[in-house]
Amino acid sequence: MNDASPIRSASAPATRPAFARWLATTNDVTRTFLSAGRIPGLINMAGGLPAPETYPAAELAALAQQAIAQHPQDTLGYGPIEGLPDLRDALAARFSTPTLRLSRDNVLITTSGMQGLDLIGKVLLEQGGLIAGQFPTYLGALDAWKPHSPRFRNLRFDEPDFDPLAALAGAQFAYTVPNFSNPTGRLVGLPMRHALVDAAHATGTWLVEDDPYGTLHYDAAPLPRMIELSGLKGHGASYDGPIVYMGTLSKEIAPGLRIGWVIAAPEMIGALTMAKQGSDMCTSGVTQRIALAALESGLVERMQPVIVNLYRERRDALCTALAEHLEDWFAWEVPVGGMFVWAVARDPLLDTDRLLPLAIEAGVCITPSSVFDASGQYRRAIRINFTLNPPDRLAEGVRRLAGAVQMMSRQRS
Amino acid sequence: MNDASPIRSASAPATRPAFARWLATTNDVTRTFLSAGRIPGLINMAGGLPAPETYPAAELAALAQQAIAQHPQDTLGYGPIEGLPDLRDALAARFSTPTLRLSRDNVLITTSGMQGLDLIGKVLLEQGGLIAGQFPTYLGALDAWKPHSPRFRNLRFDEPDFDPLAALAGAQFAYTVPNFSNPTGRLVGLPMRHALVDAAHATGTWLVEDDPYGTLHYDAAPLPRMIELSGLKGHGASYDGPIVYMGTLSKEIAPGLRIGWVIAAPEMIGALTMAKQGSDMCTSGVTQRIALAALESGLVERMQPVIVNLYRERRDALCTALAEHLEDWFAWEVPVGGMFVWAVARDPLLDTDRLLPLAIEAGVCITPSSVFDASGQYRRAIRINFTLNPPDRLAEGVRRLAGAVQMMSRQRS
Repeated sequence: MNDASPIRSASAPATRPAFARWLATTNDVTRTFLSAGRIPGLINMAGGLPAPETYPAAELAALAQQAIAQHPQDTLGYGPIEGLPDLRDALAARFSTPTLRLSRDNVLITTSGMQGLDLIGKVLLEQGGLIAGQFPTYLGALDAWKPHSPRFRNLRFDEPDFDPLAALAGAQFAYTVPNFSNPTGRLVGLPMRHALVDAAHATGTWLVEDDPYGTLHYDAAPLPRMIELSGLKGHGASYDGPIVYMGTLSKEIAPGLRIGWVIAAPEMIGALTMAKQGSDMCTSGVTQRIALAALESGLVERMQPVIVNLYRERRDALCTALAEHLEDWFAWEVPVGGMFVWAVARDPLLDTDRLLPLAIEAGVCITPSSVFDASGQYRRAIRINFTLNPPDRLAEGVRRLAGAVQMMSRQRS
Repeated sequence: MNDASPIRSASAPATRPAFARWLATTNDVTRTFLSAGRIPGLINMAGGLPAPETYPAAELAALAQQAIAQHPQDTLGYGPIEGLPDLRDALAARFSTPTLRLSRDNVLITTSGMQGLDLIGKVLLEQGGLIAGQFPTYLGALDAWKPHSPRFRNLRFDEPDFDPLAALAGAQFAYTVPNFSNPTGRLVGLPMRHALVDAAHATGTWLVEDDPYGTLHYDAAPLPRMIELSGLKGHGASYDGPIVYMGTLSKEIAPGLRIGWVIAAPEMIGALTMAKQGSDMCTSGVTQRIALAALESGLVERMQPVIVNLYRERRDALCTALAEHLEDWFAWEVPVGGMFVWAVARDPLLDTDRLLPLAIEAGVCITPSSVFDASGQYRRAIRINFTLNPPDRLAEGVRRLAGAVQMMSRQRS
């Protein structure tokens, strides 16, 4: 044994190579959220977590047993990188419409919706590539693309002179969450959906339609997906347009399955498949077969109204409590879907990065707006989740938050 | 509806942004292997596939049912990015030795061993970063790092003047598969293990010890892991050295679980965790809990001799058939472990890239050496898998391969 090597001991690791530069600029907010559940008594209104009581555990346990026993090769062996053919077929059928013709070749199974975002970065971004995106935007998307040090162009839908053609031209891709965007809960209306689709067709820019919340609509029927509007232009041909539609079972059944999908032109599916080959080779056949059984058995369909009714009640409870305790400090719109209320401080100088530690001390966790902004500069708003907690906990969380806001106000004055 | 947009139709997608450059240089060999199983009658000796008859489907089906029913939150919710604490503890205990002290903080659960390779590239490689590696090497590792366009330095263990210090100095990391390397089946001996560990400690260069085949040893007890040798230098402290050990359940139980792990210094685990956050957020709790149950119930331990005895018999059958049919054309060493025989053509001008289509036409698939070489230039050898097929199929495959070699020889003369 060479225990007495004089050169260097394990306890003095001074000369290790530097980590890649992007790591120095990243945040650990998601990690904080995922572990916030362990602080005793804390009311977690920060993360985008489903209500665990909606997980159909008994049904999924039975489906898992059957999936492995009846399909040992599909579940336990290596599978095709693109995903199990039966699951790809089922998703192609699920998202086809009279004007959107999809086949297996339009579908890639991903290991969670997050992996779809990672793969799109791998296939489209060189270092410093340009992304056109809504801001504030999904923190996980910023995380996924950070290693490529992208530049961002803000899609300012609200401005009267917004020009979709100019906004998309020259970008590697545009990123949107048209249904109940994370963090703002915003719904992109039908005219803007048409305008974006037209601009994507005209410029050639890929338009990512990230849709994890599409089934969580509380007040009205969902609007047509942008990929459906794009399909209209194909005159009945198999889909080959510029929309890259992403979905997940995380909000419809359970995030622990880590099953997502990308629906896009075969050319894009082929490129993403090459990227997936070098990322995790293939998605677990166990979770794919459970997902397929959950779709085929009607479990996913049966769950949807149950989840929607529960979350609608919680949204209303949160908004009632906010009106009671925080109306002097914050303004918000009641979201028509999704998982979040986006509350903007009436005082433009209120710094929600400073509010966070006071809120945690008061026993409630929310998300400050800075993490949803690529520049980290926007500090005036907070994102409040309403899906995880029952109404009484939401009300108590808002009372605690109001206490933290008043404490910060006293500190400032 | 804006169906008649004059600007551009979906059927003329001419101006789409370019895909990232690395995609133009990648291969689809892995994809070909994974789908080769669908060609009727083809004997697939190309991929690194386990014998499906070893998958303990009934046991895993029962464990899956219990995992979800008994641990609905662990299996169905979002979990910690690093992995379930109980599984991290179990792996820390499994790989601890009297001289290697591991805790949960040394362990990251990955969605397959492949993901560990992707993450190490994300945290250590800038564009054009330097990797010191054995060549030929694992194709999947080359795939994982291709988006970073790395430079490679060849670790020439066999050369008498090989200098480990010079070989590691200045590299972002060194990559080795010391146990029965893919593709060569080569075992790195104890003196070289010590020399590499010493060099990693002296230079600070991270040394990746990728060990998917460690339990597949047919002729002798396994050698100490390099991370154990590195642990010796820590004098009983928690592990903080430069070895990054990677493993997987793919060869011990079933690849469909997509469960792997990285064991390393907490600093490295922290960096990899940030990269995993943006890659797939967390590994499926369903497959993590099945893996934990397979470890805790003793299933993994019970499977090991069953698998080893089956694969030893197949290795011997392949080598016997090779000696009978291909000894005039190829030379090889009988591997002491792993899944492959590496056969080098006696004729230095024999081009195994040209042999592949003839072999497939003859009804057998093997892997040409070019894919294991970052430069793609080494075309003299083939990798032959012996784990997937029973002895009679292996013998028939070798007969078909000999026919293809003879046909190529006739074409050349």
